[in-house]
Amino acid sequence: MPYQAPIKDMLFVMNELAGLQAISELPGCEDATPETAEAVLEECAKFVAGEIAPLNHAGDKEPSYWTREGVVTSNGFKEAFRQFADAGWQGLQHPTEFGGQGLPKLVGTPCVEMLHGANLSFALCPLLSDGAIEALLTAGSDAQKATFLEPLVTGKWTGTMNLTEPQAGSDLAAVRTRAEPQGDGTYKIFGTKIFITYGDHDMTENIIHLVLARTPDAPAGVKGISLFIVPKFLVNADGSLGARNDAHCVSIEHKLGIKASPTAVLQFGDNGGAIGTLVGEENRGLEYMFIMMNAARFGVGMQGIGVSEHAYQHALAYAKERVQSRDLNGSPAGVAIIHHPDVRRMLMNMRAQTEAARALAYVGASLYDQAHHSADAGERARNQAVYEYLVPVIKGWSTEMSQDVTRDGVQIHGGMGFIEETGAAQHYRDAKILTIYEGTTAIQANDLIGRKTVRDGGKVAKDLIAQVRATEAELAGVEGADFAAIRKRLGQGAADLEAVVDYVVANFKGDIKGVFAGSVPYLKLAGIVLGGWQMARAALISQRKLAAGEGDASFYQAKIVTARFFADHFLAQSGGMRSAIVDGSAGVLALDVEQF
Amino acid sequence: MPYQAPIKDMLFVMNELAGLQAISELPGCEDATPETAEAVLEECAKFVAGEIAPLNHAGDKEPSYWTREGVVTSNGFKEAFRQFADAGWQGLQHPTEFGGQGLPKLVGTPCVEMLHGANLSFALCPLLSDGAIEALLTAGSDAQKATFLEPLVTGKWTGTMNLTEPQAGSDLAAVRTRAEPQGDGTYKIFGTKIFITYGDHDMTENIIHLVLARTPDAPAGVKGISLFIVPKFLVNADGSLGARNDAHCVSIEHKLGIKASPTAVLQFGDNGGAIGTLVGEENRGLEYMFIMMNAARFGVGMQGIGVSEHAYQHALAYAKERVQSRDLNGSPAGVAIIHHPDVRRMLMNMRAQTEAARALAYVGASLYDQAHHSADAGERARNQAVYEYLVPVIKGWSTEMSQDVTRDGVQIHGGMGFIEETGAAQHYRDAKILTIYEGTTAIQANDLIGRKTVRDGGKVAKDLIAQVRATEAELAGVEGADFAAIRKRLGQGAADLEAVVDYVVANFKGDIKGVFAGSVPYLKLAGIVLGGWQMARAALISQRKLAAGEGDASFYQAKIVTARFFADHFLAQSGGMRSAIVDGSAGVLALDVEQF
Repeated sequence: MPYQAPIKDMLFVMNELAGLQAISELPGCEDATPETAEAVLEECAKFVAGEIAPLNHAGDKEPSYWTREGVVTSNGFKEAFRQFADAGWQGLQHPTEFGGQGLPKLVGTPCVEMLHGANLSFALCPLLSDGAIEALLTAGSDAQKATFLEPLVTGKWTGTMNLTEPQAGSDLAAVRTRAEPQGDGTYKIFGTKIFITYGDHDMTENIIHLVLARTPDAPAGVKGISLFIVPKFLVNADGSLGARNDAHCVSIEHKLGIKASPTAVLQFGDNGGAIGTLVGEENRGLEYMFIMMNAARFGVGMQGIGVSEHAYQHALAYAKERVQSRDLNGSPAGVAIIHHPDVRRMLMNMRAQTEAARALAYVGASLYDQAHHSADAGERARNQAVYEYLVPVIKGWSTEMSQDVTRDGVQIHGGMGFIEETGAAQHYRDAKILTIYEGTTAIQANDLIGRKTVRDGGKVAKDLIAQVRATEAELAGVEGADFAAIRKRLGQGAADLEAVVDYVVANFKGDIKGVFAGSVPYLKLAGIVLGGWQMARAALISQRKLAAGEGDASFYQAKIVTARFFADHFLAQSGGMRSAIVDGSAGVLALDVEQF
Repeated sequence: MPYQAPIKDMLFVMNELAGLQAISELPGCEDATPETAEAVLEECAKFVAGEIAPLNHAGDKEPSYWTREGVVTSNGFKEAFRQFADAGWQGLQHPTEFGGQGLPKLVGTPCVEMLHGANLSFALCPLLSDGAIEALLTAGSDAQKATFLEPLVTGKWTGTMNLTEPQAGSDLAAVRTRAEPQGDGTYKIFGTKIFITYGDHDMTENIIHLVLARTPDAPAGVKGISLFIVPKFLVNADGSLGARNDAHCVSIEHKLGIKASPTAVLQFGDNGGAIGTLVGEENRGLEYMFIMMNAARFGVGMQGIGVSEHAYQHALAYAKERVQSRDLNGSPAGVAIIHHPDVRRMLMNMRAQTEAARALAYVGASLYDQAHHSADAGERARNQAVYEYLVPVIKGWSTEMSQDVTRDGVQIHGGMGFIEETGAAQHYRDAKILTIYEGTTAIQANDLIGRKTVRDGGKVAKDLIAQVRATEAELAGVEGADFAAIRKRLGQGAADLEAVVDYVVANFKGDIKGVFAGSVPYLKLAGIVLGGWQMARAALISQRKLAAGEGDASFYQAKIVTARFFADHFLAQSGGMRSAIVDGSAGVLALDVEQF
């Protein structure tokens, strides 16, 4: 099923919910007018549909594979990456001084969503490069920037993140990889890294590994980790490639999904030591890595939305085409299954969740732009705080929901969904990694509780809830059953989220395990209430457009219906989730390990 | 991860919740004493752990494959099936006169669960034979019984169900396969059947296909379908094998899961006609097929419970062994991840849902036995009605929950869960078929609404709810926060389910699409409330055992904790589900097809 970017919904969200016009008025964002943004999206959609989407199912059937000379990527990936780079898509959001286009995140984000929607495996490579670029921009020396940034930004080379080791999954304190200073400003790196996405491939002539390692006198734990640049090929002063570095891919994993993307085991220093240079200061590697991680976490959230959109389109096309059984209201012959209420319910599940997560993510991108470009420092800080609150929600909730959505996608296909040739199952398999890498949902939820809720006493969360309440009040001004239902569910959702925030803040010190037992339900509740808030905002705007007789009435009516659906089917879950969080920890924690 | 049958929980449910003692006092069930049942379970558990479970992951890696001479099953399957048959497991619940052991369903069901838990792909073959046996017992002629039953019951041969055709998935009205009478009592069968589980294999010398087809003058639609026996090899009067019949497997499917089980495309009659004999009367095929289907639907529910148990054991072993990060309460070194609250929450999710579904299914098996063996006709009819209400719930809810459970199982494994070698992903892939075959969840839900709720005006449903209320009243007599929480949630769940039943009955005629838009949520709500009811009963019984100082205190305490968890985390969802059903149809149905 060919993927088509949902440009109309993307532009609606950008313009009406995320304030693109206001973003384009910020210093440094002047080029990002709504007209330019629309042209960029159209160009990207065309490229993605023509060059990237067709490789998705083929790459699943014929994954990338390991050879002694290096990883060979799935058919067509190398050529497609060349086109991707040549067209400048890697540099969309990166600075013009390093060859990028310097567009705001709000404009880059829909393009990122499209790329992931078309082909998660392919899009992972640019996602990792983005993270490496962010880290070098923040902490790289001028020499490092001069050497590495332009090739990364232009897609001449790609980047990787090397965190995980066999004994250290999510626990970076356990990192053992060693970095020995050579006295000439370089280090020799020794160690094994696993789960390295695109840790080796044949799409570019060089790969820039960013590697966490410990210097000889480093303190134990996470405070003794430094970040190093370890290129696959050393780079000469003139930017040309030098010797092959002692960093080798010794195998790749046999995975449930995203099979075209090679997941490498990298061996550093088995032949004398891999040569690397320190990024920033010693022992601050974790801090820099978090820069990469935060960019990547938002990106993984977009993966969840992209694969959900693709699965939705796939299931929708099948539901419109597959004729099976008669209509419940009576029909002489069989009808397309989209006429059956439960198929309709599943399609609405898919559509409503995808739209809600998209809206929340784009609003997040807008906050990021305001945090980086507002003239006023207070404004920047305020937006940054809200953005940081949203990142774990966007990552955690969008990816969890993508597993529900892709499951509905298989189910709509019936028996054909279980047959791999149909392609519906690929989305289901691919999506399963999204709640795991770049920090599992539990790790996102820990971040949401610890750094994002408790540290400021729930202030940012409460400010958001106050905005939800303002929308609730606005809803009272519109007539009709749809708006009454949306208002009721949104108000209850806000009350439940507020009660949970209060519970988390009040009990964090006294009952830390009890609070964390509700961490993932809290993250999902925040996603549903804040996503439902965006759906309600979309409904209000649509109502105004309809009243004014502006634009595409069918599109706006559908927005209202979808918001209504989201309210009754998702916001209505808020009470149960609150119970699970506020009352549910006893059941989670009462058993001894021996009783399991 | 080797699967071990959860005998202790199985026996608890059989004895304490499903009334095994009373079943063993029914006419014809005298052999099924609790002591005998325990011995049977222990023997079955040993066999399954030793011979069947070890083939599970290997069969996933090396699926059965097609050859021109027939399907070759995964390594070891043929030998294992021989042992399975020789030990008499196929005949456990079937009549002694045909070589079976004649044990009640309540004793057979845990054995079925074990077999599925160990290896879904393997266990599917006996499941299909069970269905064929049921149909022949009900509708076969004496000659057919004499020829086919003993070989099927003893596992000398196996059976299949041939319903689906390329143009007719769930819609049997569209069946086109033809049966032409030859004037000698036989028919020639022509047509193509797809998705035929174990439609060909090398485990037995013959395969008995039960095939839906139309005779020349049959009326259109489901009223013109007849059922035929079409053996792979014709059978001589003395029971020896005759000529190869014109029924051939032309390909098998490449599937998401249950890869060791061949899913065949069968071509009947391409070389002159496959010879078959009519089962029962002409045009009553659908009725007979439903006998097979109902047995198979219950069996697929057991598949959901079995794979959930296996995924739970797999994840639990990993969670106890994998050391990662320090304890939240402070610990000098890393701890096993079972100490982290969100891992604990996921383990409890898996455990509580599996136990609740098991309890409900075994109670269902007990009702079946009472419906078949009670001396009193009224008693038989009453139990049959309740059993029939529960079948779609057991099938639909147990399989839907198995997808949640296996997803948690992958998630607990973190990155390792996504690597196929770990085996966690296999459960996730395997489970996905369960909500599709033998009728999708929507088809179960349609049955629950139409035949099981509306037809009797909600009487059986209300009788069950009254029993839930009685348990709620009993809970009031026990002190402590756990029982107060269980009582509150169960009471609310009963009220929500009752409101939904009233809504369904009241609106079925006037708003049929609206009612069916909530069909699957209704099925899940029924599962949660009735499963939660069993958990509450288990907690009450455990409390009495503890008070009396009887048995394993740790086991009974864990039962109470698990019931408490189920109440706060699942029963607490009842309000949201009720909203989705009673208020949610507007959002489901309002869009025109063109608006999607």
